[in-house]
Amino acid sequence: MDISADFMRRIAAAAAAETLPRFRTRGAVANKEVGGFDPVTEADRQTELAIRAVISAEFPDHGILGEEHGSQNLESRHVWVIDPIDGTRAFISGLPTWGTLVGLTVDGDAVAGMMAQPFTGELFYANAGGAHYEGPGGPHRLETRKTTRLADATLFTTTPALFKGEARGRYDRFEQTVQLARYGTDCYAFAMLAAGNVDIVTDPGLKPYDIVALIPIIEKAGGVITTFEGGPAENGGDIVAAATPELHEAAMAALRG
Amino acid sequence: MDISADFMRRIAAAAAAETLPRFRTRGAVANKEVGGFDPVTEADRQTELAIRAVISAEFPDHGILGEEHGSQNLESRHVWVIDPIDGTRAFISGLPTWGTLVGLTVDGDAVAGMMAQPFTGELFYANAGGAHYEGPGGPHRLETRKTTRLADATLFTTTPALFKGEARGRYDRFEQTVQLARYGTDCYAFAMLAAGNVDIVTDPGLKPYDIVALIPIIEKAGGVITTFEGGPAENGGDIVAAATPELHEAAMAALRG
Repeated sequence: MDISADFMRRIAAAAAAETLPRFRTRGAVANKEVGGFDPVTEADRQTELAIRAVISAEFPDHGILGEEHGSQNLESRHVWVIDPIDGTRAFISGLPTWGTLVGLTVDGDAVAGMMAQPFTGELFYANAGGAHYEGPGGPHRLETRKTTRLADATLFTTTPALFKGEARGRYDRFEQTVQLARYGTDCYAFAMLAAGNVDIVTDPGLKPYDIVALIPIIEKAGGVITTFEGGPAENGGDIVAAATPELHEAAMAALRG
Repeated sequence: MDISADFMRRIAAAAAAETLPRFRTRGAVANKEVGGFDPVTEADRQTELAIRAVISAEFPDHGILGEEHGSQNLESRHVWVIDPIDGTRAFISGLPTWGTLVGLTVDGDAVAGMMAQPFTGELFYANAGGAHYEGPGGPHRLETRKTTRLADATLFTTTPALFKGEARGRYDRFEQTVQLARYGTDCYAFAMLAAGNVDIVTDPGLKPYDIVALIPIIEKAGGVITTFEGGPAENGGDIVAAATPELHEAAMAALRG
């Protein structure tokens, strides 16, 4: 089972029609978590509906797991995993580093995926044909950098504050061993890893819809992505991705308890 | 003395011709600070030369202060202040949140300025006619949000690690009082403040070329920008910008020693 580039573009277009008109407007922001600040906009909800419609029309028997509208038909061998707007905090702050994530798992393995950023006009995707970029500068294949040493690596994480307890201490010590650390950027950082611009991305406590779409993009670009213990990333959890197997091994060793 | 929108666009085009071809390539990165990691690319150096050429051709008697190539004719009443690539770490990481900053001071006061992001095709600028945006979505005036309470505010800073000693404690306590805090994005965060997408931006230890261009954009959009003690931001230092005078007063009170 493969997903064509054209189908990826159709999903991206359907999503962009919902997200872009609501980007940088002062729309309503709802609180999803009581006591926390987890903004979910109307854009989030409507975008997921639009993506589900495109998928269901083409693959009516496939399962769908979405962030906003729950799951359907998860007993199918084929399950699509959707995060309509990954990086809602970037979205509501006007930053072009959020993305629409759509991945396909077959028997639990992520085999195809896409990250679309409609404001910049970028599409990062992977299917059986490899990992690809479309956007400013023209289409090209995605390929990770060949960095193997932590001392040469650029590291991204959304924020160190997501690491709790002893994990925070391990993260802070890890950060001291790399050349450059940056915060923020959510899914965009994983796309930059696949594109060969950064070397390591780590985030603890991810949900499947945060990461499934990105797994094939990183793997087919030459990178490695697992949990801190080396398990499959498809179920989410504490995730570390790196440009090379050597760098991934070193990062895992630093981050796991 | 006013600067036309057309002149801003000419500077932006000259800069983009140097930056864009070098963005997301694996070019050489030089260490500017011995012992630290302050990447300066060839793009940085060549972009400043290109901007200086545009300014000198139009205003041969004006002074110029640049990050890369030093100062000339600073005894002039009119001095241009240039940061060819603000956010070099974002630039080398492939993120579209860096910008080209060019500001004009008259007798030490910032009166006009621009921030250009060529990958997204955005230009934020201010002159005697006010603060303006050009880019995706079409041209419009920049206007800050009307947020007055810290509890409703979105806060950006490059990284808390830049706050040292007691200032770090004050920053950490301040961060607890706002609704949402995000890291990264350098000059782009200040542009988002002017555009009404975020409410407070603070960074300690800024140089004049980091901030002069942004002062007129924020002020003419309705915001307030000063040092932590309320002094003029033109000389750099510990800077806080906010969407309204009330919010700025509350932020200053939290951040100053």
